[in-house]
Amino acid sequence: MKRETCDLVIRGGSVFNVFTGETERADVAVADGVIVGIGRGYAAKAEYDAAGKVLLPGFTDAHMHVESTMLTPEEFARLAVPHGTCAIVADPHELVNVCGVQGAEYLAEAFSRLRAGDIQPLDVLMQLPSCVPATPFETSGARLDARATLQELEKPAFFGLGEMMNYPGVIAGDADTLAKLEAAKTLGKIVDGHAPGVTGDALNAYLAAGVATDHESLSADEVCEKLARGMYVQIRCGSSANNAAVCAPLMTAENYTRFLLCSDDKHAADLMERGHIDDALAQLVALGVPALRAVRAATLNVAECYSLRGHGAIAPGYVADMVAVDDVTNFHVGAVWKRGVLTAEGGRALFSAQPYLPAAVRDTVRVGKVTAQSFCIGAKSSRLRAMYVLPNELVTEQVVLNVQRRGGDIVLPEDVCKLAVVERHFAGGGIGLGLVKGYGFRGGALGISLSHDSHNLVVLGDDNAAMARVVELLKEAGGGMALVGKDKEEVFPLDVAGLMSSAPAADVASGTARISRHAREMGVREGYDPFMTLAFLALPVIPHLKLTDRGLFDVDAFLPVPLEADA
Amino acid sequence: MKRETCDLVIRGGSVFNVFTGETERADVAVADGVIVGIGRGYAAKAEYDAAGKVLLPGFTDAHMHVESTMLTPEEFARLAVPHGTCAIVADPHELVNVCGVQGAEYLAEAFSRLRAGDIQPLDVLMQLPSCVPATPFETSGARLDARATLQELEKPAFFGLGEMMNYPGVIAGDADTLAKLEAAKTLGKIVDGHAPGVTGDALNAYLAAGVATDHESLSADEVCEKLARGMYVQIRCGSSANNAAVCAPLMTAENYTRFLLCSDDKHAADLMERGHIDDALAQLVALGVPALRAVRAATLNVAECYSLRGHGAIAPGYVADMVAVDDVTNFHVGAVWKRGVLTAEGGRALFSAQPYLPAAVRDTVRVGKVTAQSFCIGAKSSRLRAMYVLPNELVTEQVVLNVQRRGGDIVLPEDVCKLAVVERHFAGGGIGLGLVKGYGFRGGALGISLSHDSHNLVVLGDDNAAMARVVELLKEAGGGMALVGKDKEEVFPLDVAGLMSSAPAADVASGTARISRHAREMGVREGYDPFMTLAFLALPVIPHLKLTDRGLFDVDAFLPVPLEADA
Repeated sequence: MKRETCDLVIRGGSVFNVFTGETERADVAVADGVIVGIGRGYAAKAEYDAAGKVLLPGFTDAHMHVESTMLTPEEFARLAVPHGTCAIVADPHELVNVCGVQGAEYLAEAFSRLRAGDIQPLDVLMQLPSCVPATPFETSGARLDARATLQELEKPAFFGLGEMMNYPGVIAGDADTLAKLEAAKTLGKIVDGHAPGVTGDALNAYLAAGVATDHESLSADEVCEKLARGMYVQIRCGSSANNAAVCAPLMTAENYTRFLLCSDDKHAADLMERGHIDDALAQLVALGVPALRAVRAATLNVAECYSLRGHGAIAPGYVADMVAVDDVTNFHVGAVWKRGVLTAEGGRALFSAQPYLPAAVRDTVRVGKVTAQSFCIGAKSSRLRAMYVLPNELVTEQVVLNVQRRGGDIVLPEDVCKLAVVERHFAGGGIGLGLVKGYGFRGGALGISLSHDSHNLVVLGDDNAAMARVVELLKEAGGGMALVGKDKEEVFPLDVAGLMSSAPAADVASGTARISRHAREMGVREGYDPFMTLAFLALPVIPHLKLTDRGLFDVDAFLPVPLEADA
Repeated sequence: MKRETCDLVIRGGSVFNVFTGETERADVAVADGVIVGIGRGYAAKAEYDAAGKVLLPGFTDAHMHVESTMLTPEEFARLAVPHGTCAIVADPHELVNVCGVQGAEYLAEAFSRLRAGDIQPLDVLMQLPSCVPATPFETSGARLDARATLQELEKPAFFGLGEMMNYPGVIAGDADTLAKLEAAKTLGKIVDGHAPGVTGDALNAYLAAGVATDHESLSADEVCEKLARGMYVQIRCGSSANNAAVCAPLMTAENYTRFLLCSDDKHAADLMERGHIDDALAQLVALGVPALRAVRAATLNVAECYSLRGHGAIAPGYVADMVAVDDVTNFHVGAVWKRGVLTAEGGRALFSAQPYLPAAVRDTVRVGKVTAQSFCIGAKSSRLRAMYVLPNELVTEQVVLNVQRRGGDIVLPEDVCKLAVVERHFAGGGIGLGLVKGYGFRGGALGISLSHDSHNLVVLGDDNAAMARVVELLKEAGGGMALVGKDKEEVFPLDVAGLMSSAPAADVASGTARISRHAREMGVREGYDPFMTLAFLALPVIPHLKLTDRGLFDVDAFLPVPLEADA
C-alpha cells in the first residue's frame, strides 16, 4: 500500500508473468524477502535499475546430484547462482552411499553457511536417497533399509524421498522397497522417480506405488506415456544425458505444466562454460518451445510439483527470488535476487562462504592391506571373461579371452588391462578383479575413488605394482584420481568423501582435465573418458558385465559370475 | 502388474485424461481405494460396465458453505454426490458464527458418519472461518480472534483459513486480522480470499498478506488482474451469483490451470433441479470452454491449488474418485465412485447416514423477554431514516421519511414496515429497530433466524404484536422462517443452529417454497425473496444502510447511525 518504505525496488524492467505468459513493464517492490507490489511509485531503501531487462522468477533445478560437479556446495553455489539458480532439489545419493546420512547433513550444513546479507543464497530441498546401497551385491559405506528410511524421512531436514532407482524392486513388489515408498506416503513426502524404459503395466505398478517424477525416459513415446499417466517429466540437461531435443516437441498447450527442468549430473567445467538452468532454458527455446512453457518448467511447475506455495512466480506474496535476463531467447543472466537480496551480478556471486569440511566427509578412503600381489589373478582356467566398453556409452559387452597363466597370475594379452574394485569403506580387504579389453591404456595404472554407486576404488592397469601404488595414492589423498606410470605419479585429490574436491571450481576443472589428459597420453582411446568411464565400470545396474568389490556381476542375470568363462 | 485380483475394474469406458486432454478407451483397475492400472486384462472382485461412458476424475467444489443449502450434511451429500461431487472445500462460516468451533466440528462429524462400504463418500476439506464475527458492530454467537485462530488452525481438522472477507482490515493493516493470516502462514495452511472490487495497490497488499484464492470479482478486468497477480480464481456457479459467463471467455491456454469451480452458496432446490459441479461444467462448455479446461477446473487444478497430491486425475497411484458421464458436453452423471466404492448411480446416493444432531447445534435461539412493546419506536424526531432495498440486489439505499409519532411509537406510513434485529445468542435482550420502505408486505410480520453473518433474528412487520409472536415462534422452533397474519401462523423450522433444517431435502425445498409463497401473498413485491432478502438486511458489510441488533449502521461510513435523520 506504499505506506512504508520497502527494502528493494527493481525499477524499469519487464516482468515476465508465468500465470499469463505476458510481459508487463512495471517496478517490483520487496519487503522482508517477499514481493509486496508490482506497479509504480514505490519508495525503497535500495533500488536496482533493470531497464532493458526481463525479470523472471528464480530458477529451480528439479533434480540434481551436487556430487557430480565434484565441487563443494560452496563452490557449486558460486557457479550456479550467477546463472539464476535460486533453488535445487538435491539427491545426495553419492555422499550418503559413502558417509551415510551424515553425507546429506554435510551438504545441508555447507549450503546453510552461505550468506548473502541475512539469507542463504540457494535453497536446497534435500531428498533422502532411496537406494543405499544400490544393489546388495557390493559393499557401500552405508545402508538405509525401510526402517532407517522412515526414521530419517521423519526429519524436517528431508523434503522427500530421492529417485527410486530400484524400479525392478518396486515393480516386483519387493517388501523393503515398497516399505520405503509407504514411509514417504505416510509422511506426505514426495518421491522422485528413475524409470528408464518402464512403460505399460510396469509403469502402472511403479506409479501405483507412489512415485511422482521421472527424468530417465528413453524415447518420446515413453515421455508421452509417463505424462499421460500423471508423472511430472523432468527434462534432463546434464553433461552427458540431454533430453531437451526429445522433450521440446512434446510440450503442448495441454501438458506443458507437467514438465520440469533438471541437470541430474553436471560437471564443473560445463557449469562454468555453458551455465546451468539458464542454459537449459535457452536450449528449449532454441528448439522452438514458447518462452512461457520453458520458463514455467524452471519455476512455477516445479513449485506445483513439489507443493512449494508462494514460490515460482513474480507476484505479491511470493518469495522474492528473481533473475534479470537480457531476453527470453538467450537467457543471459545479469542479476539474481534471493529473498530480495542481490546474490549475483554480471556472472559474479555476491555471497560469502564459511568453508566447512567436517570429519564425516574427510579421510573416507579406508582400505585393507594392498600390495602388488593383491592384483594377481590366480585363475583356474585360461578362458576368462573380459569387459569391452562400447565407446561413448556406459554399456559393456562381455568377451571371452584365452590367457596364459604364469606364477599365480596371468599374462595380459595385447590391449587388455586388469580392473580392480577395492573396497574402501571399512578396510575390509575386499577386492574384485576383472579384465578390460580395448581401453588402450598401457604402462602403469590409473584409479578413482568415485565409482557409482558404492564408490569403491576402481583401478585399471597393466602393472600390479603400479595398481597397488594407485591405491596407496588414493588412500593418502583421501580419495581422488590417481595415475602411475614408469617415472611419474600424479594425483588429483577428491578429498571430500572421495567424491568431491575442496579446491576452487576453476582448479577442479583444470586439475581434472590435466590428469585426464595425462592418462590419455598413456593410450586411453577416444570414446572413453579416462577416469569417468572407469567410475561406471563398477555400477552393477547398467548392462551387461560389471565389476564390484565382490567380483564380476552379470547385470542381465542380476547375479555374480566368476571370472572363469567356463565355470 | 496383474499379479493379484483387484477390488474393482471399470470396463469399456473412455478415460478422460486431464494431463493431456485426450480420451483413451481403457479399463481402470482399483485396489485399496487407489487406481492401480489403466489398460486391459484386469481381474477384479467387482466389475462395472462403463461402455459408452466417459470417466472423469471426481469433482471438487473448491469453495462452499454447506449451510446455504439449509440442509444437514447428510442431506446435502445425498444430493451432491450423485452429481459427481467427491470432495468439497467447506467454509462453515455461518455455523461457527452461531455455535463457535463446535459448529465446524458438527459438520465434520456429520460428514464422517456417512458410509459407503468402509469409506466416507464425500471428502470435506474444512476451512476455519476467518471472520467471526464479521464486524465488531453486532452480536454473534462466537468470536475467533487471532489467538483463537492460531489455536484452532493448529488442529489437523482444519485444512486452511476460510475466506478472508475482512479485506479492508487486511489492506489497512489491522493487527488482529494480519495475525490470523500470519498464523496460517506459520502453519503452512492455505488462506481463501474474498475481495470484491479489490485491484491495484489494494490487491497487491491483500496478496502480500498471503491470500491464495478469490471468487468475488466484479468484472472481467478484475478476474484478469487477479490471475496475473497469482490468485487462483474460483468461478462461482451458485444460486444467486454466477460468474461462468464472465470467466468462460477469459480461460486461455496460458492461464486455464489457475481456474477452479465452486458454488459458494447453492440452495437445496437448485441442487435438486440443476445439479452441482456437473451443472457448472456444462455451463462452461456451453459457453465455449474446451472440455479439458472445464474439467481441470473441477479436478486437477483444485488439487494443485490445495496441494492435494494424488487427487484430481485418473492415473495410477491416484485416489480412485471417479465419475461416469454420458459426455463432456452435458456432463450427465451416471455413476460415482469414491476411493473405488460406488457411491451413486442413476442419480441415487448409495450410502447410509447416521443422523447426527448434537446439543451444540440444537436450541440455539436464545432471546430475552420480547413483547409487542419491544417493537415500539420512541423516536425523538419525526424525520427518520429508512432502508429502501433495490429489487434483485442486496444493496439498500437510505431514504428519509416524515412520520407521525403517537403514544411512544410511530404511525407507519404507506408501504413502510418496521424491521427488527433481535439478538438471539445470549438472550441479552438487544434489539435494533429500523424502517423498510417498498417491501410491500402488510398485515402481520415475518421473520427468519438465518441472517448474515451473525444470524440474529430479523423480523419485518407492520404489527408489533405479530412481530413479537414471530420471535416467539422462532424461539420455539429453535430457529426457522416464521409468518404471522391476521388469522394464521406458519413456521418452517431451521432447527440446526437456526440455519439448516433436519428435514429431508425435498421437504426443505417444498417447505421453504410454501412459506415464501404465503409471505408473497401478504404483499411482498417481486424482486424480493420474502425471507432471504431479509437475511441480508442485517449484513453490515454490503452498502449502504443496514440494521444490526445494536441499531442502524451506515456501511459507507462504517459507523452506527441513529434512526433519527437529523441527529
